[in-house]
Amino acid sequence: MMEIRNPITVEEAAKRVMACRKYGEVEYVDITAANGRVLAQDIIADHDVPSFDRSPYDGFAVRSIDTKTAAADNSILLNVVGHIGAGSVFKQELKEKDAVRIMTGAAIPRGADTVIMLEDTEQAGDNQIYIKREMKHHQNISFQGEDVEKGSVIVSKGKLINPGVVALLATFGYKQVPVSKKPVIGVIATGSELLEVDQALEEGKIRNSNAYMIMAQIERSGATAKYYGQFSDKLDICIQQMQVAMSEVDFLITTGGVSVGDFDLLPEIYDYFQAEVLFNKIKMRPGSVTTVAQLNNQLLYGLSGNPSACYVGFELYVKPIIDAFLDRDQIGLKTVKATLTEDFPKSNPFDRFIRGHYVIKNSQVTVAPSGKDKSNMVHSLAEANCFIRLRGGTAAYSKGEVVDIYLLENHS
Amino acid sequence: MMEIRNPITVEEAAKRVMACRKYGEVEYVDITAANGRVLAQDIIADHDVPSFDRSPYDGFAVRSIDTKTAAADNSILLNVVGHIGAGSVFKQELKEKDAVRIMTGAAIPRGADTVIMLEDTEQAGDNQIYIKREMKHHQNISFQGEDVEKGSVIVSKGKLINPGVVALLATFGYKQVPVSKKPVIGVIATGSELLEVDQALEEGKIRNSNAYMIMAQIERSGATAKYYGQFSDKLDICIQQMQVAMSEVDFLITTGGVSVGDFDLLPEIYDYFQAEVLFNKIKMRPGSVTTVAQLNNQLLYGLSGNPSACYVGFELYVKPIIDAFLDRDQIGLKTVKATLTEDFPKSNPFDRFIRGHYVIKNSQVTVAPSGKDKSNMVHSLAEANCFIRLRGGTAAYSKGEVVDIYLLENHS
Repeated sequence: MMEIRNPITVEEAAKRVMACRKYGEVEYVDITAANGRVLAQDIIADHDVPSFDRSPYDGFAVRSIDTKTAAADNSILLNVVGHIGAGSVFKQELKEKDAVRIMTGAAIPRGADTVIMLEDTEQAGDNQIYIKREMKHHQNISFQGEDVEKGSVIVSKGKLINPGVVALLATFGYKQVPVSKKPVIGVIATGSELLEVDQALEEGKIRNSNAYMIMAQIERSGATAKYYGQFSDKLDICIQQMQVAMSEVDFLITTGGVSVGDFDLLPEIYDYFQAEVLFNKIKMRPGSVTTVAQLNNQLLYGLSGNPSACYVGFELYVKPIIDAFLDRDQIGLKTVKATLTEDFPKSNPFDRFIRGHYVIKNSQVTVAPSGKDKSNMVHSLAEANCFIRLRGGTAAYSKGEVVDIYLLENHS
Repeated sequence: MMEIRNPITVEEAAKRVMACRKYGEVEYVDITAANGRVLAQDIIADHDVPSFDRSPYDGFAVRSIDTKTAAADNSILLNVVGHIGAGSVFKQELKEKDAVRIMTGAAIPRGADTVIMLEDTEQAGDNQIYIKREMKHHQNISFQGEDVEKGSVIVSKGKLINPGVVALLATFGYKQVPVSKKPVIGVIATGSELLEVDQALEEGKIRNSNAYMIMAQIERSGATAKYYGQFSDKLDICIQQMQVAMSEVDFLITTGGVSVGDFDLLPEIYDYFQAEVLFNKIKMRPGSVTTVAQLNNQLLYGLSGNPSACYVGFELYVKPIIDAFLDRDQIGLKTVKATLTEDFPKSNPFDRFIRGHYVIKNSQVTVAPSGKDKSNMVHSLAEANCFIRLRGGTAAYSKGEVVDIYLLENHS
């Protein structure tokens, strides 16, 4: 039966999917495993930074009042009464004409109100120095709390943890880090033309590449992939396989089987489960047959069997749902503008998402399709770092026009 | 003893480090674990793509000669003699006025030389169709080998594997993927002021954040970190600890202990081992005391204890050595130009590397320091996605000037 499908816009499709968003749970991981995860709670400063008044330089802690008349032609002699390594504390209070040798980061001793840098002093014997420069009250002191005040929010939840965030987590004592649990996403391949990756080729068949590609996309998005292999082409077995998969994962993706072709089982399976089909036709190329259904609040994705369509379908409709599950501060791919460096002669009845490669040259972002012609499938797959979006209802695009691009590999 | 150090340029320092480059080995991982690894061998097509002449559309395989006079006002009747699903093969040869129903991706049957799209036909009974359009010889056929020829190099070694590359690996039967073995990098923290991340604060002390930050940087760079904890401040124990570490890792990083301060042990340790110090002073800020030595062809990094300097030292001198070990096609951080959106009023006696945040707006890359003033340590750590390089020997930089930036998080 040839079904009539009602195409919706890319934005409407995204909206319908996002209406089914689910949030994940919080789990704790060791700080050494936190990089690349999503912070699940605000990080609060458990102390001031610095947590004491400290020296920003290697030098001598002194009393500014003792340096009043010091100048290049008027050395003043001070007595070195101690030595403070980083991490140790000098217990005495400085008296008149006292100086204490101090290392970068060490606590300012009582009585001292400034630090004179080592290069502004001169050794004058075993326990004496000359200083040749007047110091001001509170000069060269890093005051307690000047970087961060105790109790303030250091990093907000939703942030992707990078090495700089790890440094902050360590500084504030987060040995165990609250992160968002990764969603588990099931992957099922359909298509009687598919061989597994380790099978020898046969006429009429191709190796299953979509499932492996999708699993890599799942991982890149910060989720966990679970592969269920290839579907049977018998409806009853399919239904059983799908039931098992749905019970074990947060979201389920099938690749292939969503066209209006005679052999495509997915619509029948959705019918059987009485799943609500959110849409089965989008005004976009490739991937117009991308189908999403939901069953008991679980999203079931039917991505196209065509590799480009499958790739695009994932990034546009699965990635945002992963971001939402992780409660990230950035939902979906980052979008920026770029200048086309090549003509795109085809017209665009629907929105078109082409795999592209953007570069930055002289602080300008330019982009070109990464596989210009159909013989360039390999280059397009391996070299794409963005999608180029060409709006539906437009004629050809010319070199020099500014387009929207969606960044695939940019994590910051 | 106050040692005189001879500062060298950033480029000279990088050159001396790279002269000690080591290559890693090849290992095989399952295709599901290949994303994010570095390809260690060229990937060769084991078959043509397509591997047989196939249909790019859903429609009917026909003989163009039978369509010669077809037009909108002149329907031609063909006999549907078969049905080819994707993956199956039609064994008969087409005879005069024969048509075979064919699915996208299926093999073209013998005798047919074109595919007419489903929408250009009309059902004329159970086993007959009308066609209303003349088809040309070889129209709508994807020919064997037109995408990729058997034997050609699909992806070159050194490439970071992304989901597109995974799709190619699957297509060409790479169930096991040759990747570069990750180097193991040892991390040792030094500094008597350091507490571990789970210890309560004490006056004069700070928690060890550098080691955790560096471990995250190591991971981000595609290597494996091995943490040896904090060094003893007793020379003989240190030497023993270092000996163990060196025997277990490819490269060793210590943080702290490289200043000319009185408590810094590292120079003594290098002396003890008779390690060759490649440099211990670089014309850069921060990180001028970054020290690199080599012992029996093993690089020993002495990064500064200052967090910013430590971070910069890693990215400039350790990351390229990791890339080299992995035999990547991109060595070191990617560098592009960006326009400053803020004044930078300080002069730059040496090259200055500031943590920055770049954005793309209207296809222009702009950048600002991510921690403008010293109270902004947190923002600088968490939000940096690049370094801004300000050249030594320059006065202040102004808003609008174009500078070099080094991208920290861009993997493509």
